Amino acid sequence: ADVKKIAVIGGDGIGPEVVAEAIKVMKKTEEVFGYGFEFEHGLFGGIAIDEKGTPLPEETLQMCKKSDAVLLGAVGGPKWDSNPKELRPETGLLGIRKALGLFSNIRPANVFDCLKEASTLKPEVLEGTDLIVVRELTGGIYFGEKFRREGENGQEAVDTCVYNVNEIERIVRQAFEIARTRSKRLASVDKANVLETSRLWRETVIRIAADYPDVELEHVLVDNCAMQLLRRPASFDVIVTENMFGDILSDEAAMLTGSIGMLSSASLGEGAFGLYEPVHGSAPDIAGQGIANPIATILSVALMFRLTFGYHDAAEAIERAVKEVLDAGHRTGDIAVDKSKAIGTVAMGELIVNAI
Amino acid sequence: ADVKKIAVIGGDGIGPEVVAEAIKVMKKTEEVFGYGFEFEHGLFGGIAIDEKGTPLPEETLQMCKKSDAVLLGAVGGPKWDSNPKELRPETGLLGIRKALGLFSNIRPANVFDCLKEASTLKPEVLEGTDLIVVRELTGGIYFGEKFRREGENGQEAVDTCVYNVNEIERIVRQAFEIARTRSKRLASVDKANVLETSRLWRETVIRIAADYPDVELEHVLVDNCAMQLLRRPASFDVIVTENMFGDILSDEAAMLTGSIGMLSSASLGEGAFGLYEPVHGSAPDIAGQGIANPIATILSVALMFRLTFGYHDAAEAIERAVKEVLDAGHRTGDIAVDKSKAIGTVAMGELIVNAI
Ligand SMILES: CC(C)[C@H](C(=O)O)[C@@H](O)C(=O)O
Ligand SMILES: CC(C)[C@H](C(=O)O)[C@@H](O)C(=O)O
Repeated sequence: ADVKKIAVIGGDGIGPEVVAEAIKVMKKTEEVFGYGFEFEHGLFGGIAIDEKGTPLPEETLQMCKKSDAVLLGAVGGPKWDSNPKELRPETGLLGIRKALGLFSNIRPANVFDCLKEASTLKPEVLEGTDLIVVRELTGGIYFGEKFRREGENGQEAVDTCVYNVNEIERIVRQAFEIARTRSKRLASVDKANVLETSRLWRETVIRIAADYPDVELEHVLVDNCAMQLLRRPASFDVIVTENMFGDILSDEAAMLTGSIGMLSSASLGEGAFGLYEPVHGSAPDIAGQGIANPIATILSVALMFRLTFGYHDAAEAIERAVKEVLDAGHRTGDIAVDKSKAIGTVAMGELIVNAI
Repeated sequence: ADVKKIAVIGGDGIGPEVVAEAIKVMKKTEEVFGYGFEFEHGLFGGIAIDEKGTPLPEETLQMCKKSDAVLLGAVGGPKWDSNPKELRPETGLLGIRKALGLFSNIRPANVFDCLKEASTLKPEVLEGTDLIVVRELTGGIYFGEKFRREGENGQEAVDTCVYNVNEIERIVRQAFEIARTRSKRLASVDKANVLETSRLWRETVIRIAADYPDVELEHVLVDNCAMQLLRRPASFDVIVTENMFGDILSDEAAMLTGSIGMLSSASLGEGAFGLYEPVHGSAPDIAGQGIANPIATILSVALMFRLTFGYHDAAEAIERAVKEVLDAGHRTGDIAVDKSKAIGTVAMGELIVNAI
């Protein structure tokens, strides 16, 4: 059979623990659906700084490049927070995105029935919320020139936000394509009343919209979007925006669902290749205790199956298994109402594996 | 007596209607407290574009410069949205901030008891929320160089985000001072793991914090702040951040209180001079109908009395009058549960004037 190479990066904090359960899920789909995976493990983030002196070792990058998809746990932690820039986990994250050409970050934010109560929003406001934030990931102020200089008024710092038409076009087209597979509504978020990059963004969106007459398009200013996400979350379908705005809005959207421990993400480039990771971070406070929730990582595998491999049967089986286990009342500590009945990472993983 | 010169800018949409009520309130405080005001009116925003061919006519700017404080309604509307940059209301707004040296935007976001239900957040989450966003207003990516150029990959747009130490220091000191008059907690928001301007921001905050050992300081990354505002709004006291992040977060904070029709703002410079305006916009859809809520503008007058004139007695009287009228059950349409009982702009203004 066609064996897929999976680059596995546990990373820091709870990363390795949740990734281990996701791998068990993938192995189960080998048995049930006959798919084949080959796993290779690499160091990345804080642990790579400790062991290799750099957050993104060359061998890890090569491993990713030779693979069909990357499964990432999480990176970062207070241990490395005051390191110089080249020795910080985030630098590895930005580096791997750029090196692998992952210009698109896809973050579904949907509500799990059993977690509705976990949101700080009123259930009736949240009802029906099911949106995707498509964030540009390799451009903008994240990657523009940055420096210090002496100005007339003392030291100055400069960041440069740059976008070219092609960078905007490819992410916007992808967002339109995704909207087409869903409710056919796209909100493009910018700050066109202030920023030149946003004006180019908006012009480009308007031009490309002509190719997608079936998709309903709205332009939303970023400050207004931060409000509308709170006021009418269910009215959004696909949101597309540039890197910095996407960083902020995708986190806001994730939090308002109340399901942050359950949300997955994909970072994609031109082809089918993608990097998949849970939205939650490395949670150093609970690392090593065996209590982390593996569901977001397991659902990231489902996303990988859909977007990179087209294994829709297995993706659906995973999603159904997760739902079944939750419906049966099983909870890890983060999502348990009665914490005393919470189960651990491995127990949750096993239940899901058995339900596939 | 010491007569204060007030520059009055009604602006667009509902601006003139709500400002008219605020002026009645100021006049009432002349009677009750013996203060004296002299009002001069100027054109600004869309109406100035229509009548003078520019959003910020020189005579309006001069009028503001000669005044002790500015009372602004709102500017903007769809009519001018596709105008070229120099003929857009926002350009006037950015221009007046810069020309008057208003480097600090103060936005209280608090919950009105009678409006708790208007929020999309659960009441128990909102309970006790009373925060102030202090936003840097004349620097950063808003005012840095912006341009288009031909790059290797077609047209490119560039925005530049620049901050010097002095710009950061003055706003941060102001935020620490404000925190001192409140619960003594300051959250400084940046993206220091990515941006050079944020690293300079954070270094500066840490240095200045030494002068405010009584204020508890936390550094929050902007994406995390967008989440924490939703998760634990009541835990914030004063939030200080740069221009673009402040634009997004202050709107998010305002919306989550459910009180957006009630929130006031101040834009301040070095001295006592300030520009005061409601947070809500020009609401062109309801302009001219006499149904707009004047309370945010009236409360902006209270803020002006406190911050620019030190008229604490009159400020308190205004705030108490607003509370009294609301407690008696009077509502404009935007905040009414039973819309059929809603009263208009003038009626609401009169009730408040009479309650002073
Ligand atoms: C860690 C940080 C550099 C990163 C980002 O801002 O992109 C993170 O917040 C994310 O969203 O993946
Ligand atoms: C209209 C716009 C330029 C302005 C800003 O972004 O500053 C507005 O959103 C505000 O917050 O006052």
